[in-house]
Amino acid sequence: MNFRHLIDYNDISGEDWAMLIDLANDIKKSPNRYTSECKTKVMATLFYEPSTRTQLSFQTAMLRLGGQVIGFSDPKNSSIAKGESLRDTIKIVSGYADITVIRNPIEGAAYAASLYSTVPVINAGDGSHLHPTQTMTDMYTIVREKGRYENLTIGFCGDLANGRTVHSLAKAFSYYKNNTLYFISTEALRLPQYIINLLSDSGNKIYIVDSLEEHIAAFDILYMTRIQRERFGSVEEYEAQSGIYILNSEKLKQAKDDLLIMHPLPKTDEISFEVDDDPRSKYFEQAENGLYIRMALILLLCENYGYKITPPVYPMPQRRFCSNARCISNHERYLPEKIKRSGSGSLCEYCENTVLN
Amino acid sequence: MNFRHLIDYNDISGEDWAMLIDLANDIKKSPNRYTSECKTKVMATLFYEPSTRTQLSFQTAMLRLGGQVIGFSDPKNSSIAKGESLRDTIKIVSGYADITVIRNPIEGAAYAASLYSTVPVINAGDGSHLHPTQTMTDMYTIVREKGRYENLTIGFCGDLANGRTVHSLAKAFSYYKNNTLYFISTEALRLPQYIINLLSDSGNKIYIVDSLEEHIAAFDILYMTRIQRERFGSVEEYEAQSGIYILNSEKLKQAKDDLLIMHPLPKTDEISFEVDDDPRSKYFEQAENGLYIRMALILLLCENYGYKITPPVYPMPQRRFCSNARCISNHERYLPEKIKRSGSGSLCEYCENTVLN
Amino acid sequence: MNFRHLIDYNDISGEDWAMLIDLANDIKKSPNRYTSECKTKVMATLFYEPSTRTQLSFQTAMLRLGGQVIGFSDPKNSSIAKGESLRDTIKIVSGYADITVIRNPIEGAAYAASLYSTVPVINAGDGSHLHPTQTMTDMYTIVREKGRYENLTIGFCGDLANGRTVHSLAKAFSYYKNNTLYFISTEALRLPQYIINLLSDSGNKIYIVDSLEEHIAAFDILYMTRIQRERFGSVEEYEAQSGIYILNSEKLKQAKDDLLIMHPLPKTDEISFEVDDDPRSKYFEQAENGLYIRMALILLLCENYGYKITPPVYPMPQRRFCSNARCISNHERYLPEKIKRSGSGSLCEYCENTVLN
Repeated sequence: MNFRHLIDYNDISGEDWAMLIDLANDIKKSPNRYTSECKTKVMATLFYEPSTRTQLSFQTAMLRLGGQVIGFSDPKNSSIAKGESLRDTIKIVSGYADITVIRNPIEGAAYAASLYSTVPVINAGDGSHLHPTQTMTDMYTIVREKGRYENLTIGFCGDLANGRTVHSLAKAFSYYKNNTLYFISTEALRLPQYIINLLSDSGNKIYIVDSLEEHIAAFDILYMTRIQRERFGSVEEYEAQSGIYILNSEKLKQAKDDLLIMHPLPKTDEISFEVDDDPRSKYFEQAENGLYIRMALILLLCENYGYKITPPVYPMPQRRFCSNARCISNHERYLPEKIKRSGSGSLCEYCENTVLN
Repeated sequence: MNFRHLIDYNDISGEDWAMLIDLANDIKKSPNRYTSECKTKVMATLFYEPSTRTQLSFQTAMLRLGGQVIGFSDPKNSSIAKGESLRDTIKIVSGYADITVIRNPIEGAAYAASLYSTVPVINAGDGSHLHPTQTMTDMYTIVREKGRYENLTIGFCGDLANGRTVHSLAKAFSYYKNNTLYFISTEALRLPQYIINLLSDSGNKIYIVDSLEEHIAAFDILYMTRIQRERFGSVEEYEAQSGIYILNSEKLKQAKDDLLIMHPLPKTDEISFEVDDDPRSKYFEQAENGLYIRMALILLLCENYGYKITPPVYPMPQRRFCSNARCISNHERYLPEKIKRSGSGSLCEYCENTVLN
Repeated sequence: MNFRHLIDYNDISGEDWAMLIDLANDIKKSPNRYTSECKTKVMATLFYEPSTRTQLSFQTAMLRLGGQVIGFSDPKNSSIAKGESLRDTIKIVSGYADITVIRNPIEGAAYAASLYSTVPVINAGDGSHLHPTQTMTDMYTIVREKGRYENLTIGFCGDLANGRTVHSLAKAFSYYKNNTLYFISTEALRLPQYIINLLSDSGNKIYIVDSLEEHIAAFDILYMTRIQRERFGSVEEYEAQSGIYILNSEKLKQAKDDLLIMHPLPKTDEISFEVDDDPRSKYFEQAENGLYIRMALILLLCENYGYKITPPVYPMPQRRFCSNARCISNHERYLPEKIKRSGSGSLCEYCENTVLN
């Protein structure tokens, strides 16, 4: 296994991903064989912002492996969260736990944590940047249901501008080819151009469209997301347009019999209640798959990296180097300068934004 | 065992109740025999309003059976609690847990949850409607201490108008007969008439009285409850009357030597401190009994229904059908119309209020 | 083992302390031998004020011994915390748990709790009064690193007036002799006179000084603490003086090669970032030691007092007897009068302040 920390879904090699899928499948099939695999292990869940669902999923995963869980879920109640540097918190928690799950509203926080942790770190969301176990959940569900990541026609529908989930999943498909991807949204909620470029370069067909109804018949997979009311310019605009992006049984009449309907959940109005009972809807199974893929991840990290390492001593940074005000490097000023080459330019390794000159 | 979900104490048949009592007695006697009975099981505690004591009792029960616990306790911190339908939350949690305990301020919420859950659901309080494990705790304590549910003289004292605990316990006695029940309160805090009718019809003697002191000598059981200061018309009224309903050692001088003093706890001023040390006071043991009866309940549900079921597909409701604004059917609009016959009329199955025409 | 409850570090005899150190050392060396020692035991953590770090440390300790944890961490969310007497809460929790850890902002609360608990009670902080497991952590770290409690030169630096941690540690040294203790602070943040007297009487040399830099070369141990900005008279004063008490690599150049640098954590500006990487800094190991000494404490209490006792019946107090408004005896009015002789006078046993005549 080639990663000690899971910060980004793209850290996972094809070989490791195949191993994770196999393990998750076996756990789903024979959960009773895994009930003591992490016995005597303790996982810390450091949630600097509340995310009940994600935390429940990680907690359940560890408990079902026979391990135990400590942590906090509310920054206001946490003396750990205020005043103390992230580095100090991580060093102390490393003394308590065998594996750490971190969620933090600041971009790059999980990567920063991994620099100082003596135990494996899993990123459970760093602001609007990454949420790799959600992407793992989605990719795992797709391969279970469709058996492949190529030659698929996929519709992404809803708020494509702001959804971290869709961005990550779309980026994951840039590693595969011969897919036809429809991005369905209002003009204001289009997918960012850099992701469109990434996908086009990788040998997938891309269509940017307005209507769900016109294209639904072509889809193997339909990935729905929430549109928050406040994303529309006015209430009138919301009422006029939101219906176009609501999935109901009427629209589904034109869809394929083996369409796979996905949603990262929670959902509200964007899927009509009756669609839940359509056998093509797999979003609740998708949520359950998230449990099994997290169990597989935790188990492999504990098995392969179940010992403490001493992180290196990093030099203090000489200057601000990241252009992004929400980057952890601009909040925790001791963090070492970390810059990576990316195509034509340089990116901050914490948050993947452009660096300052 | 004839119930998969525990929503209402009255769901329990006499046979099942006898089995629960036997099991609770054995757990209390030999707790070490039960420390692995629910090993590998996970219980979800979904507390949409905080109730530390109830949650602690359920958590301890599951942990002492060797199981594990996930959940949330504060709606404000819970992304699960906002926006998402109860149905969605239950479906997702069913993918994580083997048994679910739910507390919700909306009446009928636990019953609604049970319609969509693939695992057993226990009602830990649905607004002012039901709290069946409290009633189980009370009934279990009575049978342990008195050995019977008939030929008892019982005083209920305090706020009888608003106390869900007293209502449920009194209703439970409508299944037995030859008891003499005293309801002691101020005029404003009388027991609701429908419960009085229920009890009279069932062959028990009912007395509605003002004074604790005058009747205490007759009691086999005295069930005390809190009177909240704001239930009185004025501070003067409170100070004039509250003393009448305070149990102290002076009043206890007239009571039987084997009086059983109960209280659902927490208590404040309604029982003088010195009464705690009277051997007739059993409210702390009552609280501990609550642990054993909950252990018995969880164990039997996990043993008998430790597999997942697929709930049926329910039709969407055609109209509002319940007259109660605090009924879950008026908050979660997809819930199917559920109406049951009750004597002369029809009642909403969620909250047991009258239905709309 | 001569104590059933741990309220005060000074309750521990030399013999018991030696046993705790040996056990903590063995747990640190061979943690896998202890993973089932408290199997089937349940610990309650009653945190009436949030203290994430302390609670995490206790929870981890119990989980690593194979036990389980229940509890609450936030008074606002806890129905247990409001209205109900501490005595009632403790009696009820005694019915659930095998050992109780309590943190409470009121002085003497843990001692008061121990009077009514049927299971062992550990004080995890009672206001600004005591925090014995922090002192145990400090004393354990000192003996591990230095092998002795005598013939040491120790510097205490920072806010010595308000820090409970420093007070307790300094008092612990009054049981040993031939140490040279430097107390380094601004005029306004001096150590209280009664502790200075205690230490002088015990045969240790005391120096009250202003400068860290002047004396650092002499120290075997340097115990740093936080200075809160608001302790200074003005921003100017803060900026002028705080630097004097900041430990950086420049000042450390003069220090001994085997200096032991300690800090109770969390820390903020008082230690420069680069000092973390100095091998003489042991504060993260100190935090980890806190885990092992708590494991030893919990294990010994569960082993030696793993049965329930019935506390005696205490007489109601006849009067207010403590001069301290923040004493638990002035908040929970049923608490029995508890006064102890101390040198020339009498002290309240709850909070160790002077008694009223």
